[in-house]
Amino acid sequence: MTSLAQRTQHAWPDGARCVIGLTLDFDGTSLERGRDQLPFGARSHGRYSAKCGIPRFVDMFTRQEVPWTFYVSGYDAEESPDLVRSIARSGIEIGSHGYLHEGVDPGDAEPELLERTHKLLSDITGTAPKGWRSPSGHKTARTLHKLRELGYVYDSSDKDFDLPYLLRYGGQEHDNYLCLPNNTSSLDDFPFYRVSYTPPSEVLTHWMQEFDAIYAEGGYFNLTVHPRVGR
Amino acid sequence: MTSLAQRTQHAWPDGARCVIGLTLDFDGTSLERGRDQLPFGARSHGRYSAKCGIPRFVDMFTRQEVPWTFYVSGYDAEESPDLVRSIARSGIEIGSHGYLHEGVDPGDAEPELLERTHKLLSDITGTAPKGWRSPSGHKTARTLHKLRELGYVYDSSDKDFDLPYLLRYGGQEHDNYLCLPNNTSSLDDFPFYRVSYTPPSEVLTHWMQEFDAIYAEGGYFNLTVHPRVGR
Amino acid sequence: MTSLAQRTQHAWPDGARCVIGLTLDFDGTSLERGRDQLPFGARSHGRYSAKCGIPRFVDMFTRQEVPWTFYVSGYDAEESPDLVRSIARSGIEIGSHGYLHEGVDPGDAEPELLERTHKLLSDITGTAPKGWRSPSGHKTARTLHKLRELGYVYDSSDKDFDLPYLLRYGGQEHDNYLCLPNNTSSLDDFPFYRVSYTPPSEVLTHWMQEFDAIYAEGGYFNLTVHPRVGR
Amino acid sequence: MTSLAQRTQHAWPDGARCVIGLTLDFDGTSLERGRDQLPFGARSHGRYSAKCGIPRFVDMFTRQEVPWTFYVSGYDAEESPDLVRSIARSGIEIGSHGYLHEGVDPGDAEPELLERTHKLLSDITGTAPKGWRSPSGHKTARTLHKLRELGYVYDSSDKDFDLPYLLRYGGQEHDNYLCLPNNTSSLDDFPFYRVSYTPPSEVLTHWMQEFDAIYAEGGYFNLTVHPRVGR
Repeated sequence: MTSLAQRTQHAWPDGARCVIGLTLDFDGTSLERGRDQLPFGARSHGRYSAKCGIPRFVDMFTRQEVPWTFYVSGYDAEESPDLVRSIARSGIEIGSHGYLHEGVDPGDAEPELLERTHKLLSDITGTAPKGWRSPSGHKTARTLHKLRELGYVYDSSDKDFDLPYLLRYGGQEHDNYLCLPNNTSSLDDFPFYRVSYTPPSEVLTHWMQEFDAIYAEGGYFNLTVHPRVGR
Repeated sequence: MTSLAQRTQHAWPDGARCVIGLTLDFDGTSLERGRDQLPFGARSHGRYSAKCGIPRFVDMFTRQEVPWTFYVSGYDAEESPDLVRSIARSGIEIGSHGYLHEGVDPGDAEPELLERTHKLLSDITGTAPKGWRSPSGHKTARTLHKLRELGYVYDSSDKDFDLPYLLRYGGQEHDNYLCLPNNTSSLDDFPFYRVSYTPPSEVLTHWMQEFDAIYAEGGYFNLTVHPRVGR
Repeated sequence: MTSLAQRTQHAWPDGARCVIGLTLDFDGTSLERGRDQLPFGARSHGRYSAKCGIPRFVDMFTRQEVPWTFYVSGYDAEESPDLVRSIARSGIEIGSHGYLHEGVDPGDAEPELLERTHKLLSDITGTAPKGWRSPSGHKTARTLHKLRELGYVYDSSDKDFDLPYLLRYGGQEHDNYLCLPNNTSSLDDFPFYRVSYTPPSEVLTHWMQEFDAIYAEGGYFNLTVHPRVGR
Repeated sequence: MTSLAQRTQHAWPDGARCVIGLTLDFDGTSLERGRDQLPFGARSHGRYSAKCGIPRFVDMFTRQEVPWTFYVSGYDAEESPDLVRSIARSGIEIGSHGYLHEGVDPGDAEPELLERTHKLLSDITGTAPKGWRSPSGHKTARTLHKLRELGYVYDSSDKDFDLPYLLRYGGQEHDNYLCLPNNTSSLDDFPFYRVSYTPPSEVLTHWMQEFDAIYAEGGYFNLTVHPRVGR
């Protein structure tokens, strides 16, 4: 078998066989607020993030000293500035994730929303975010233009490859902008906990099998979790 | 690892490590009646509650002498007063659960519906209910105002935490009103039996794993079952 | 534990502990035709019944000499009269199942549709059907009135109990009309093969566990399969 | 037990017990383009096919020297002519699969779309395709008329049998046109990876059980995979 690395003439730095990305989407009440819903009762899942899910992850993963990136929306940062500051201080990277977790293309309002979120996260954490993840996957030329103007060097929104790649944009490869594809089918907790209701022990087995397959290919294992979903 | 208890400076009374809530939603034909559906044929699941599911639970759980709370709608109590009386007599707590299992915010009609259900349950069982669960999760300031006027001291409708908490309401913590969050993702039989069609033996494995995780954290394990769903 | 039989003062004849019903819904192209769809390409599943699924069941279950009931719509009987005749000749009971697998209440047209299907099945098989199953679960007083006029003595459409029961209708118990509840959550192949895509070996485990539970209670195990669904 | 082969008086050539079809739907960005969606961000799954999924399959299955058929839309061929040429050169059969993966009946535009795709695939690969699969299952008399005019000898779109069969069309059996039914319930990766989120190891178990059942019957095992779905 030729591996992914061989087929694509790709080699990881320092002789690494495989690279792992560990990412978390904060997804607090911004998701409901962005839909004009009150985050109470049946719509209170978003409050679980700040009260329970995020602190548990911060505790677990800073203790393990494994690098993570948490994608945070502007609204959630405004609502939980102390928590977001403590995430950043623990050494976890903060990426931006929309203002109100915009589920559809915000149109002409997008540049201002990107800028507002950028400023909020920069002010709260003391560091300008360098990475972005589209809240629900929309991403256009307008998005990219504004992101690069704000100094972003990567986003993690596409589901099109098993390796990171430099963006080809306007027909050119830009060596200062990187796409880190994520996999919302098999390396994301959302469908397992909210669509198929798969028990966590099976999800772990699934992810370990996926890791084995990606490792064998020399690929990029990019995991996404949502601490508002299930436990 | 710091536990949930440590992170939140929470301690259970009497040195308990973890607290378990066992709850059941009666969900008889009120659900169909509230949608102007006739509870026959394909829509006859609600009749299973009173005829089969509830008596089985009353038999099982009073025999085990483990405390349970059954949430009952006003309509279901009117339709099965003897059964509801026998539930209460067996020692199971009765909470209120809407009049016609209102699936959306009933608007200005809500106070009267809450009051009617409260009176029905009080008259049938001889005891005023102290707890409420929103039938489909809606819960607003108007709901809370009326519940407290009627003497309720807790509700179990939010999905935002792994511990009970005192309500902060109008900026203040009210030490006489408690939220008992329930978990409709992983500790509720509904999605397993009506969405993912998971076999009961796997559901049990799942719940046992969830219990182990919550026990390790010193949290609150709040289980919800619906005897109208599957067996 | 008190069993279902004890709680309901029910006893099976001849000291039987549990009774099993094995039922199959033919569900040929009537389902698509009833929705004005052409049964080709992606909508060709219904043709699988007559060409493949039903002959396999007839072969398997007549060989095993275990009694089954096949519910057949009038349209499917018109389209496959030889197959329906051979089902009846093999010793399998034929029940009626709508004319075009009517998915919603046919309104005033219902009596004529029930009568047409009744005549078709009677003429083709030489025996008047005695049982009916609502195609998609609708069932009203009008349905029952016509069914009893045509000589039906039971239907298997409700999901409200774990035992057969005599119909209470207009406030009275009619000792000549029986309801055989079926369970479309856990004892039906449809949700497992078309909603949750559960492997057949797991479905078998599931059904065996359900049987054990029903047997322990002295209940009624009523299985429903659809040979148009999956294999 | 009488087998499917016995019941249908069917015999495979050369004493074969069972025949296996291995098929792949390319499903690149044509699917999104056909819906007027931009294939970026959340809608970038289609790009995975050409960049990652298809090359992996070409590598795996040409190495194994097992015959496969890849169904390719005209638009995807236009977008990735080199890849499609390399698929054909590797010895994999190319079938046609719509122009823009038309999800609904294209009406009067269909003949031109079939012809355009046919010409594109013929020009790129140097060989006229002989087989067609309906992109989303629609298939009418108009489709068949045009396919046969273009020289197609089979399609693989219906879900109505466990054996290939000669088309009966206009009341006649045409011995030069074959239907190769595919099974989109249990022998297709789409529902497992995008509906039920079943781990790949379970999918393999499922398919092996299906194979055993089909082998025992002497049937036709026709597998369909989509390298845009999950991994």
